Amino acid sequence: MDIATLIGIVAGFTVMTIAISISPGATIKGFIDYPSIMCVLGGAAASVLASSPLRQFFSVFRVARKAFFNQQADIPAIIEQIVSLAETARRDGLLALEGRLEEVDNPFIVLGVQMAVDGTRPEVIEEILRNEMESVATRHRNGKLIVDQFAKYGPAFGMIGTLIGLIIMLGNMKDPDAIGPGMAVALITTLYGSIIANVVCLPLADKLAFISKHELLGMEIILRGIMGIQSGDNPRIIEQRLNTFVPPKHRVTSRKAA
Amino acid sequence: MDIATLIGIVAGFTVMTIAISISPGATIKGFIDYPSIMCVLGGAAASVLASSPLRQFFSVFRVARKAFFNQQADIPAIIEQIVSLAETARRDGLLALEGRLEEVDNPFIVLGVQMAVDGTRPEVIEEILRNEMESVATRHRNGKLIVDQFAKYGPAFGMIGTLIGLIIMLGNMKDPDAIGPGMAVALITTLYGSIIANVVCLPLADKLAFISKHELLGMEIILRGIMGIQSGDNPRIIEQRLNTFVPPKHRVTSRKAA
Amino acid sequence: MDIATLIGIVAGFTVMTIAISISPGATIKGFIDYPSIMCVLGGAAASVLASSPLRQFFSVFRVARKAFFNQQADIPAIIEQIVSLAETARRDGLLALEGRLEEVDNPFIVLGVQMAVDGTRPEVIEEILRNEMESVATRHRNGKLIVDQFAKYGPAFGMIGTLIGLIIMLGNMKDPDAIGPGMAVALITTLYGSIIANVVCLPLADKLAFISKHELLGMEIILRGIMGIQSGDNPRIIEQRLNTFVPPKHRVTSRKAA
Amino acid sequence: MDIATLIGIVAGFTVMTIAISISPGATIKGFIDYPSIMCVLGGAAASVLASSPLRQFFSVFRVARKAFFNQQADIPAIIEQIVSLAETARRDGLLALEGRLEEVDNPFIVLGVQMAVDGTRPEVIEEILRNEMESVATRHRNGKLIVDQFAKYGPAFGMIGTLIGLIIMLGNMKDPDAIGPGMAVALITTLYGSIIANVVCLPLADKLAFISKHELLGMEIILRGIMGIQSGDNPRIIEQRLNTFVPPKHRVTSRKAA
Amino acid sequence: MDIATLIGIVAGFTVMTIAISISPGATIKGFIDYPSIMCVLGGAAASVLASSPLRQFFSVFRVARKAFFNQQADIPAIIEQIVSLAETARRDGLLALEGRLEEVDNPFIVLGVQMAVDGTRPEVIEEILRNEMESVATRHRNGKLIVDQFAKYGPAFGMIGTLIGLIIMLGNMKDPDAIGPGMAVALITTLYGSIIANVVCLPLADKLAFISKHELLGMEIILRGIMGIQSGDNPRIIEQRLNTFVPPKHRVTSRKAA
Repeated sequence: MDIATLIGIVAGFTVMTIAISISPGATIKGFIDYPSIMCVLGGAAASVLASSPLRQFFSVFRVARKAFFNQQADIPAIIEQIVSLAETARRDGLLALEGRLEEVDNPFIVLGVQMAVDGTRPEVIEEILRNEMESVATRHRNGKLIVDQFAKYGPAFGMIGTLIGLIIMLGNMKDPDAIGPGMAVALITTLYGSIIANVVCLPLADKLAFISKHELLGMEIILRGIMGIQSGDNPRIIEQRLNTFVPPKHRVTSRKAA
Repeated sequence: MDIATLIGIVAGFTVMTIAISISPGATIKGFIDYPSIMCVLGGAAASVLASSPLRQFFSVFRVARKAFFNQQADIPAIIEQIVSLAETARRDGLLALEGRLEEVDNPFIVLGVQMAVDGTRPEVIEEILRNEMESVATRHRNGKLIVDQFAKYGPAFGMIGTLIGLIIMLGNMKDPDAIGPGMAVALITTLYGSIIANVVCLPLADKLAFISKHELLGMEIILRGIMGIQSGDNPRIIEQRLNTFVPPKHRVTSRKAA
Repeated sequence: MDIATLIGIVAGFTVMTIAISISPGATIKGFIDYPSIMCVLGGAAASVLASSPLRQFFSVFRVARKAFFNQQADIPAIIEQIVSLAETARRDGLLALEGRLEEVDNPFIVLGVQMAVDGTRPEVIEEILRNEMESVATRHRNGKLIVDQFAKYGPAFGMIGTLIGLIIMLGNMKDPDAIGPGMAVALITTLYGSIIANVVCLPLADKLAFISKHELLGMEIILRGIMGIQSGDNPRIIEQRLNTFVPPKHRVTSRKAA
Repeated sequence: MDIATLIGIVAGFTVMTIAISISPGATIKGFIDYPSIMCVLGGAAASVLASSPLRQFFSVFRVARKAFFNQQADIPAIIEQIVSLAETARRDGLLALEGRLEEVDNPFIVLGVQMAVDGTRPEVIEEILRNEMESVATRHRNGKLIVDQFAKYGPAFGMIGTLIGLIIMLGNMKDPDAIGPGMAVALITTLYGSIIANVVCLPLADKLAFISKHELLGMEIILRGIMGIQSGDNPRIIEQRLNTFVPPKHRVTSRKAA
Repeated sequence: MDIATLIGIVAGFTVMTIAISISPGATIKGFIDYPSIMCVLGGAAASVLASSPLRQFFSVFRVARKAFFNQQADIPAIIEQIVSLAETARRDGLLALEGRLEEVDNPFIVLGVQMAVDGTRPEVIEEILRNEMESVATRHRNGKLIVDQFAKYGPAFGMIGTLIGLIIMLGNMKDPDAIGPGMAVALITTLYGSIIANVVCLPLADKLAFISKHELLGMEIILRGIMGIQSGDNPRIIEQRLNTFVPPKHRVTSRKAA
């Protein structure tokens, strides 16, 4: 589990908290203004809601959890498994793969091997696996989109809040001494908007993009492996070909069959 | 009907109204300035009008209604219908589809099946259906463009209004006490511009993009299905292939023919 | 003739004029400052001139006139004419088209039909027509580019003018009462720059893009029609294929040959 | 020689000089501040230097000279020459072109014709000429990149200079009368940055892009012409095909062979 | 070794130091504020950490070192070596290359030649080499991404720091004389953010992009060379073809075999 995202966001808030704490005359409490929080978070949520179908809007929590607690696909293990299946297929024929399917966890490998065992034509296997990948990519894009929209509408409502605060303050300006605190309150929504975007949502969106790319890379490797198995390629060639998808130091060199 | 857009926009305005209401010394009335509304909305409409052919400009209301009250294509139902047609074609031949056309609502399915029944060559069927899709995509893009332009020119005229207000105020600055309220009024157009963009038009445009993508996905599925029917594919294979376009939990598994 | 652009720009200026007129203590005259106009318009023109070959720079007037008074290609009429030519070709042979060329206004149809009549090979016809389209698209892009550059350098010189004004004002600040009017004058160039971009040039550029897309769509339809005529396709098939390029309600259904 | 760029940049500075001169109480001298010039120009040069290999950095002068004094490829003359070579090849055979090579200046035509005379296979000729074009395009892109980077880092160091100036001024603020002139000086670097970008570098970069496009168009025409000559096409067909790359009024119609 | 990046960044800081030194009443010490440094650098690092997997985050130091001390691929030497290998292959057969492999340093040449010697099919060689290139390109992109993110989150936390500073200052505004220095401190984080982006990270990212492009160009040349050797092309043709990838003045003309 990669907890960099969780650590990073907590660290971001810690940095700001320390920066405030060590400033003379400043208190954390002075930076917490509930109406401002409601204006920025509520407003941003409203615009995100208006931007997407209802069902997708509520996926934001599931998507965020994924960024925090995602278990990344173990690509070297995938390659190892594909090569091992290729060895079985070469030794005992494609049909022998059926017996090994229950030891396979990855549903994408199961789908591909099952079609190969069933004698589905290679073009059809490739088409179906590619569609499946495209479908996963679309789901990932939609999930990331919600986070991107919070990163867009958070600062927007931050600015709207500041404008509202300034207009109120400037319109009622009788006591010049009140200008400073008035502006301070007005600026808080801009600060909130900037935090939502730069401390939370933009990093989250970048991380989701990375996770998606990694998962799709794993699927691409599986697809190429299945196609190789289906056409009866030498397991060593399949291994070499799949290894080119990963950096040299993570490459698998199974010499079991050597 | 997906009313998330309507709810979202209403919620956005509600959030701002509450934020103003709970500020001491502020009234909603202080945020309603008819000349400013005219300047921002009228100016934005003028620039949008100048950007597009007359006919397209007036489509903005139809387009907005679509975002609010759109009935999304029911993709599982489409797949079910295609598979059912494929079963008829396989059992009784392509010509038997003619008799089933009247129970089909979707004009795109009707067009495709009619061509298949007429014995049109597959390449021609695909070309015509693809052109039809491209034509729909263009109409959607043009509709969304109008909304995008309002999101661009709204804030632009907000800034123009604020500049005009500032220049008037700064040029006539005799009474220093009038500076505050003068600036408050000047800033209102910026606020309006930001609301037009971030609370109304940008979410609307995102939603339109989503609706368009969904409708085109439905057409893509129909096209693939028609091509499969035309070439006499097994209905089970067609079903499996079309199902890859939707997330696993929405997949259709019609076992009627099993 | 589509005069939406003219109406839109006039309306934009009208909106601003009204906004100024109804403000107490403001006069239109206070918003007209000849040195500022010279700085913004002259400066923008200088940078646009530096950006492009001399000949292209002077095309800006021709290009602007096109956006204002463009006569759009009548696509249904084009389809009707192509179908009618296809009927002649089918009935009396390709050579019979020569006699009908003089009733055709559109030079792109003439070019294509002439090549078909001359027996030019289809690949060559397609290559030459495609190059012609690419050449038209390039001319359109170059024309739009000049307008886009004015939209970029107008606001840039608006800001340069404001900076110059501020530096002068701040450097000579003896009489505090003069600060207000000084800033008012300084801001006028920013206002001018914003008007050049948002009221005039950006809408103009969008409109030019639309006109270009429409003209190229017409050429694409002609190209497809000519290729169909050349290969002796059924006029009804040609009509159906070309109709997919236009929205349903503008489709042509010539039943002359039915 | 197209001197629009030189004229445009000189005009840009003239406009600003006049704008300053006619302002009461302003002098050109007040706008020349050597430390600020050093900060903006020197800082931008430092960041551009850090962005690129040493050799490329020094190409900026050669590149700028090209934008100012470029002699554009005369495309109609190129077409004429290609057609004339095609006539020779058709009349006297490909080998006869060798005798005409010395009258050809353009090294790209020489390279192509030489390979055709040597009997190099058409695919190899096309590959080598395309690589050559790609190589020219890359050199142009790299040259333009340096200018683009000055346009990016100029304003950045303008802002850095202004921030430094403001921090100094605000930190030492004892005499309120000194605030105005202090801010005036601080703003001068922002003005310089904006001038570097909008009056000099962005127009230069646009012009370089145009020159590159024009030169590559010339090379594309030559490539197509050489391929036509090599495959023994009719010179009239070659002429017609090449002419589609230029606007109608610049087309060549050599009737020498008619 | 290309030390332009190191020189450029040092020069950037020198320029700023001089600009501060020569300002009357300013000291370098006034520009060093440890809490501000912590806020901007620490905050940016936190958000970058949250954006990427842990392992990738720590690659930033290795990546930066690469930009500073990268030894660029010597492309003419690569071409010379490929041509020399091609001569051996043509004279003594593909298998003779095995004896020359130990004099080759570049692992990509070794991989390609080894596969050619082993009699791997050309499509497989090309596929494996292309995947290898794609894998290198991805690693480069990921490395550059970390630097790009620092360039994005540095200014973001600069602004967050300034907002925090302004809110503290405005909220506690009792002594008007303290406003100036308070704002000066608040602005320092904006300055730091701008320096991180414009003096360090953006130039670094540009340089990394250049290094990556150069390395991939070298690999492309090797790939084309290996394919040529494998298919037994004439070494002179290979040389000519590879030379088109480099600017004329760096071209290799080995006449050893002439």
